Amino acid sequence: MYVCGATVQAVPHIGHLRSGLVFDVLNRWFTHHGYEVAYVRNVTDIDDKILRKAAEAGRPWWEWATTHERAFTEAYNTLGCLPPSVEPRATGHITQMISMIGELIEKGHAYAAAGDVYFDVRSLPGYGALSGQKIDEMTQGEGEGAGKRDPADFTLWKGAKPGEPSWGSPWGTGRPGWHIECSAMARTYLGSAFDIHGGGLDLVFPHHENECAQSHAAGDPFAARWMHHHWVTQAGEKMSKSLGNTLSVPAITAHTRPIALRYYLIGAHYRSPIEYSPKALADAVTAFERIEGLLGRVAERVGEVAIGELPAEFVEAMDDDLAVPRALAVIHDQVRIGNSSLADGRPEDALAAAGAVRGMLAVLGLDTRDPRWATAAAGDDSLHRATDALIQALLQQRTAARAARNFAEADLIRDNLAAAGFAIEDTSDGPVWSVIPTN
Amino acid sequence: MYVCGATVQAVPHIGHLRSGLVFDVLNRWFTHHGYEVAYVRNVTDIDDKILRKAAEAGRPWWEWATTHERAFTEAYNTLGCLPPSVEPRATGHITQMISMIGELIEKGHAYAAAGDVYFDVRSLPGYGALSGQKIDEMTQGEGEGAGKRDPADFTLWKGAKPGEPSWGSPWGTGRPGWHIECSAMARTYLGSAFDIHGGGLDLVFPHHENECAQSHAAGDPFAARWMHHHWVTQAGEKMSKSLGNTLSVPAITAHTRPIALRYYLIGAHYRSPIEYSPKALADAVTAFERIEGLLGRVAERVGEVAIGELPAEFVEAMDDDLAVPRALAVIHDQVRIGNSSLADGRPEDALAAAGAVRGMLAVLGLDTRDPRWATAAAGDDSLHRATDALIQALLQQRTAARAARNFAEADLIRDNLAAAGFAIEDTSDGPVWSVIPTN
Repeated sequence: MYVCGATVQAVPHIGHLRSGLVFDVLNRWFTHHGYEVAYVRNVTDIDDKILRKAAEAGRPWWEWATTHERAFTEAYNTLGCLPPSVEPRATGHITQMISMIGELIEKGHAYAAAGDVYFDVRSLPGYGALSGQKIDEMTQGEGEGAGKRDPADFTLWKGAKPGEPSWGSPWGTGRPGWHIECSAMARTYLGSAFDIHGGGLDLVFPHHENECAQSHAAGDPFAARWMHHHWVTQAGEKMSKSLGNTLSVPAITAHTRPIALRYYLIGAHYRSPIEYSPKALADAVTAFERIEGLLGRVAERVGEVAIGELPAEFVEAMDDDLAVPRALAVIHDQVRIGNSSLADGRPEDALAAAGAVRGMLAVLGLDTRDPRWATAAAGDDSLHRATDALIQALLQQRTAARAARNFAEADLIRDNLAAAGFAIEDTSDGPVWSVIPTN
Repeated sequence: MYVCGATVQAVPHIGHLRSGLVFDVLNRWFTHHGYEVAYVRNVTDIDDKILRKAAEAGRPWWEWATTHERAFTEAYNTLGCLPPSVEPRATGHITQMISMIGELIEKGHAYAAAGDVYFDVRSLPGYGALSGQKIDEMTQGEGEGAGKRDPADFTLWKGAKPGEPSWGSPWGTGRPGWHIECSAMARTYLGSAFDIHGGGLDLVFPHHENECAQSHAAGDPFAARWMHHHWVTQAGEKMSKSLGNTLSVPAITAHTRPIALRYYLIGAHYRSPIEYSPKALADAVTAFERIEGLLGRVAERVGEVAIGELPAEFVEAMDDDLAVPRALAVIHDQVRIGNSSLADGRPEDALAAAGAVRGMLAVLGLDTRDPRWATAAAGDDSLHRATDALIQALLQQRTAARAARNFAEADLIRDNLAAAGFAIEDTSDGPVWSVIPTN
């Protein structure tokens, strides 16, 4: 399968991680069924945002991309995603893109104009089928191009602009358009035809429609199936960068265990949105602790909990277009059975239920006993603990200052925390802090 | 600086890590001196060994390369190497290599023949200067090529062989020769001229000689200085893969702490071999524990050990072509002084010696209290950064309070930090904090 991965321009928030998690669960489920999965997830390491942000920070664009590629890798690891078979970078496949663009020109589906190359959308019968677009009513959202014959056409190659990175090509120096990247990388690693293409709902149009168009026009059957996952939303909208600042993976895992965050983020059906709220996250943490509670009690009172067989209803749910919510319901049924078996003095039944629970958790990447989680959790404990103690002390000091009507002192404390990059949220459980990513 | 990185064909043994460690120490030392280092370390992700081993294992070559690139990244992290500014992959720079080969042909330094392209060694006056080779007496060690005019010539581009990966080029499909990779990648990220080129002794000829030849012939001044490190040896020979199986980084760190392994591997001068033996490693571990012993005793009996000033002899040693063995001798001198000061009842002298030791360890990437060692797995940089900003703000506030003779406020800030578990040390570079391990 080919999955559209990150544009590495910032530290990821939990919305950016959903894709990695959805296809990690799918990858694990296929592997459970005995398939050998060739899993390609690309890294878009050049685009307008990367260039702009790097320039604003006064850093080379390639250092900016490298730094944030590392931040994504770290976040995927933190949330227990198994690594893909290969993580190709867009800038690493210019040769293949140029060769594909050449084929498209040769076959009459693309044209060079004023240093750019465009895809001739009307040359391809069936354009728009994937996303249900009508050519006369749509916009590619990429602005005008000097030599664009039809506003519906999209860019395959952008002529070089001063001060921007560029590569040599038969049409002059420049850089690739966004869509051609994935057509060329999918073909490089998976060949002309492959099983599944995945990505977020926002990629259906124009990105995937245009990938499809390019690959079909070049003669590739391309993806047999498409899987589009919904977003993590806030007030129904795709989580935005600005809203997401306090929701970066490092910020959330400063107060929430990574394994519980994973449980929360894989819990919805991949085609449904996850409307983020601190309460929803807290509820998921509680639900996960309920599962752990059973496992702990059985281990303590009965004995070692082995990884048991998967209940048939769990397998059915997972096989039915990855119905994870139904699969989690099966886990919680078994937790209830395990708890009542303990209460009723039926230890063998409790052990069987706990074994089934551990088996289901394991296949979802949620086995608490997997050493992967131990290293992720152990990581930063002492720094986190000390920082937490310091911030709690400062917040108490602020409360005391306010009570004494010493507002200058209270404000200074608040300002120091904000300037350092800590976000403080008042919750019913008291203040909760997180780190705001710096870029 | 440009450093020739790994050919990602196997899990690294400690011999493979020496390069990463040598240039990490150099990078840290330059940074200590206030330089901003652009540090490029490439990944050779295609070569005959990768293709052969992947084929033997029945895996795609790109999956093989990806898997072992990850193993190297993990090993570098485990040994406390700071990441380079960018880690370009060879296969990601075919465009730039093709364009450079084109320049060489145009300038009369290369020729295409039977689908291959060769560098015409005799066309470049001064060829052989870096490695002291005489053209008539040397061999490139790459076998015959069908169209090679002179046995001394070397390959820039290899025509495609059936079943092997290949890329399009003006000379037909094929793949790049090994040497052109680094000339093209160095130019991409560092421009035509840069300060330092590094790599292992085995790379002087033919690899670096040929890089030099290519870049000079293309008109690039290229590297101003070359730094070649010696190997980890066994019986005087470069550590071999077969001998190295039990000496992989994961295998050794299963029984030796990564920080002690780092101490061992950076301890020799970079131009000298490290003759590996279990006894030599054990001796280094003991020596490192002797250092830790002093720090622990002083912390227990006298008080918090600050990061102290670097002794002048240490700075001199490091500035003298990175004479780490002399630098380590200065550390051990201070350890002896610290121990005898403790024995003689001179706690202030012991504290000063321990502080100097901690300062020297820190700049070598060996500070046991560096949160990086604790967070090597989770790597939460943003938390560290925010905590640092907050503490610096609090310390400024404390300074201001003291200046205003508001000692109650100054004391409160100090007490809050101490109670949270932060140790604050005043150094010539300003206050430095660390987390007191809680154990």
